[in-house]
Amino acid sequence: MRSEFDFINYIKERHKLKVVGDDCSVVPKDSLSDHLFTVDLLIENIDFRLDWTTPAMLGHKALAVSLSDIAAMGGTPKYALLSIGVPDSLWKTPFLDEFYEGWHSLAREFGVELIGGDISKASELVIDSFVIGEVPKGKALLRSGAKSGDILFVTGELGGSSLGLLLLENGTRPDPEVEEILQNAVLRQLKPQPQVAIGILLLENKLATSAIDLSDGISSDLAHVCKASGVGAAIDASKLPITKGATLEMALDGGEDFEILFTVSPERRSNAFALGAVEIGEITSESNITLLIDGEPRPLTPKGFDHFKRA
Amino acid sequence: MRSEFDFINYIKERHKLKVVGDDCSVVPKDSLSDHLFTVDLLIENIDFRLDWTTPAMLGHKALAVSLSDIAAMGGTPKYALLSIGVPDSLWKTPFLDEFYEGWHSLAREFGVELIGGDISKASELVIDSFVIGEVPKGKALLRSGAKSGDILFVTGELGGSSLGLLLLENGTRPDPEVEEILQNAVLRQLKPQPQVAIGILLLENKLATSAIDLSDGISSDLAHVCKASGVGAAIDASKLPITKGATLEMALDGGEDFEILFTVSPERRSNAFALGAVEIGEITSESNITLLIDGEPRPLTPKGFDHFKRA
Repeated sequence: MRSEFDFINYIKERHKLKVVGDDCSVVPKDSLSDHLFTVDLLIENIDFRLDWTTPAMLGHKALAVSLSDIAAMGGTPKYALLSIGVPDSLWKTPFLDEFYEGWHSLAREFGVELIGGDISKASELVIDSFVIGEVPKGKALLRSGAKSGDILFVTGELGGSSLGLLLLENGTRPDPEVEEILQNAVLRQLKPQPQVAIGILLLENKLATSAIDLSDGISSDLAHVCKASGVGAAIDASKLPITKGATLEMALDGGEDFEILFTVSPERRSNAFALGAVEIGEITSESNITLLIDGEPRPLTPKGFDHFKRA
Repeated sequence: MRSEFDFINYIKERHKLKVVGDDCSVVPKDSLSDHLFTVDLLIENIDFRLDWTTPAMLGHKALAVSLSDIAAMGGTPKYALLSIGVPDSLWKTPFLDEFYEGWHSLAREFGVELIGGDISKASELVIDSFVIGEVPKGKALLRSGAKSGDILFVTGELGGSSLGLLLLENGTRPDPEVEEILQNAVLRQLKPQPQVAIGILLLENKLATSAIDLSDGISSDLAHVCKASGVGAAIDASKLPITKGATLEMALDGGEDFEILFTVSPERRSNAFALGAVEIGEITSESNITLLIDGEPRPLTPKGFDHFKRA
């Protein structure tokens, strides 16, 4: 069956779409700024489970995933619109109030204003999050700017969200009484922190030559960068900042870590370290992506999340 | 049970939201223009039924409902993002291709560019349509500008969409062989035409003192205008341009006609006629809304569509 990426590419070509391709769409705003637009659709029992999270954490995550897209392009989030399809059973409970509390709590942290939305009845809970950001004109961080020799960095831990998902599947729940390692992973899955501040610094300091948010897993997201930039990459497994308890596979293919993967020219390497980012490899002039394990290069193939390939 | 309007008002007050309230949110763009943002969530078996429509008509309608919001504020639609949750059963068919064909056919008509979106698996079809428009700075047509003595106009037929829904419920399907009166109503339900051109003229000619799109039904939508403007209204049943075959109740409460309801100062009345609009009543200084039937005033109470009040 065709994947969702195949389908999106088909629609782009069929209808000659130009803007679709980065984490956000970039559209001219005024003489100084561009607008960024991003949207994320979350569906009950596909993207979240109500018995694994709290309404407030779900509200937080619904906004966080979109803020992460703005962050990866170096933007400042400004406004949001929120569409919700709600089952009757939830409509009668405090669910929505708590959901909006969680959403607004994160929105206040980043100065995001809710300016609209829509609400409908549905048989399962559906959340669609639109966020509008701003970026200095022509300066948005794109996937397409990586050059051979550039150094690859990530802004934080990998694999934690995927480990958290496994723990949730096996019965662990958000609970301060539970061992800290488990809770860290569970919270990375349920309540991810978007890297908005670092994204803005990457842009303001003209540091990143390319950037993407790690929503699908580094094996997929790095492939997007390499394809858009016309380059290859080599990453070193021993350098990956893997969340305690997570596996290499989780770090590579797990997705939903919502850290930023970015590239920096070699002479700016120390500036990236100063932001607390972790070096994980480099961009090459090859056409493939390799993973060094114990010094042995192996091909790294995209195995990130695809809604229509997984069971 | 609280209605969706109650809930939206609660969230507005609880979180001190300022912009929510008109058909679109208005946000400053540059020194000459404001941006308009609107979003519409359509859920299978709540807002549409797949056995009553075609994929292309559904694509058309998904965009049309949002264009109608832009139209009611006098805006020019520019960009769109589209989120779709798709059941596996549809993913394997040409459904999405035909849906996007219908969507793009209408988009081309109004010069709207698709710049992004999201796609997910879902157990029922979910469509969330986000449209971005532009309007001259500070000039967006609002619900709040109606004044006592202003004349009330609508841009076209009322009740047709509601009649179409009834016909569909009773087994009529879109079919060129079927009697024209039935097809007109069915198409008003399945393939509504947004009044973008008239909206722009209302704004450019500084004609409308207030405007709203008729999505919920005139009994509800006129109440929104009166509440926002702090006025009352009197409409005359004999003047309503009711679709052939539709009832007065359908025209008042049916919803989804997607015509524009607008007000004009008395001295500009003839300019509204010149646009082909139909006079249906006037704005009063009372606090209530009355419907004249055979010269007898009766109170008109909102009975438009509410997702959480109807069965």
